Amino acid sequence: MRVLLTIAYDGTEYCGWQRQDNGPTVQATLEAALLSIFGGNIPTVAASRTDSGVHSLGQRVAFSVKECKIPAEKLCYVINKRLPQDITVQKSELVDEEFNPRYAAKKKTYVYRIWNARYPNPLNMRYSWHVSYRLHQEGMARACKYFTGRHNFSAFCAAGGSAITFERTVFSCSIEKKDLMWELIICGDGFLYNMVRIITGTIIDVGRGWLKAEDIPAIIRLGDRTKAGQTAPAHGLCLEKVSF
Amino acid sequence: MRVLLTIAYDGTEYCGWQRQDNGPTVQATLEAALLSIFGGNIPTVAASRTDSGVHSLGQRVAFSVKECKIPAEKLCYVINKRLPQDITVQKSELVDEEFNPRYAAKKKTYVYRIWNARYPNPLNMRYSWHVSYRLHQEGMARACKYFTGRHNFSAFCAAGGSAITFERTVFSCSIEKKDLMWELIICGDGFLYNMVRIITGTIIDVGRGWLKAEDIPAIIRLGDRTKAGQTAPAHGLCLEKVSF
Repeated sequence: MRVLLTIAYDGTEYCGWQRQDNGPTVQATLEAALLSIFGGNIPTVAASRTDSGVHSLGQRVAFSVKECKIPAEKLCYVINKRLPQDITVQKSELVDEEFNPRYAAKKKTYVYRIWNARYPNPLNMRYSWHVSYRLHQEGMARACKYFTGRHNFSAFCAAGGSAITFERTVFSCSIEKKDLMWELIICGDGFLYNMVRIITGTIIDVGRGWLKAEDIPAIIRLGDRTKAGQTAPAHGLCLEKVSF
Repeated sequence: MRVLLTIAYDGTEYCGWQRQDNGPTVQATLEAALLSIFGGNIPTVAASRTDSGVHSLGQRVAFSVKECKIPAEKLCYVINKRLPQDITVQKSELVDEEFNPRYAAKKKTYVYRIWNARYPNPLNMRYSWHVSYRLHQEGMARACKYFTGRHNFSAFCAAGGSAITFERTVFSCSIEKKDLMWELIICGDGFLYNMVRIITGTIIDVGRGWLKAEDIPAIIRLGDRTKAGQTAPAHGLCLEKVSF
């Protein structure tokens, strides 16, 4: 049977989702838990390969097992018993044998959190970027709008990604402010390597007056990474939801 | 001059505010920072002696220095440079030489956070208590009301405190729910040892049906700790604000 998991994790201690030799990853940790339950190597496929330090509330991961007496929807309980506290399966469900969350993902929603105050707040610093300079909300809201639609996002892509095409559709991009915490919510059909973090850094550069919102269409058109803004740090970013 | 600080901290790694021999404390960490700035022992006094593992957004701490060329309101910047990331001074200000935040505190507000979902959420588990059973909001709201007013709270006090009298005034006690996160907000003139955590545990016991809200007046009247509810764990609690 094939099982689809919804996974939340605090990415602080991990070198991202994808298994690698340089350090602990969420994939390797999850596969070790599956190995201890099923006694064999169980390869997993995730909807999104989150970067080192990025968090998740809604990562979706699929794997197949030949024999399993536990119903798919009860598996989350068993898997959680073998995972460290910073990774939790929120849901497990039965899916078709061919289901691949990476290709089935139609919509991904990321939230980037910014704590805009003079000093950092120890109670949210693991999950937000501390920005101490004054931000102009109105310009940032205008900047957000320029990212929506189908564009070639090569100016908003770090080197080292595996993308073949740079065309992506951003369905929505908006910024909300709750007291000193700002949330940039971006939803698209897929994102290039570091794309959300470079878009966030660019919008923050607009907010602090280093760039104008109206510069963004030309930055997108030119496709030159050096014209876009800084890359916002990983720890402010969270994969909130994947829709199929 | 005498300086008053407003301090935020993640209490996870500390044995509470007050200096002790068993492990690191917020007070010892802060005093070490002050020692490295001023070159002498600087005793500090806090408004509230938060327990081991309890967090703060609004702890108030005073100390005196004989000679200091830095204006009081700029000191926060200097102190933060010498503090670990999980403690930050949010504000520093000049106060009267006799000012003692412990005796001057008129009102303290604590927030206890409860994550009411089937599984824990790694992104908030450091700062909230994960409760997986169903909670009945209406009963909990009624339970909250019974705690307001001036009462003898000896049934809601752990052994080992230094209190002489058990009379305290709770100005307000209420519960709010934002999606799966519940916030118990309690404001009073002072709290006994573990008092907020035992009140929270009792309200949760009402929420899960182990106690009735209407039992609370008798529990208060009898003054018997064993009749009140469980002690909620420290990591869900945060000292939000102290008013003078």
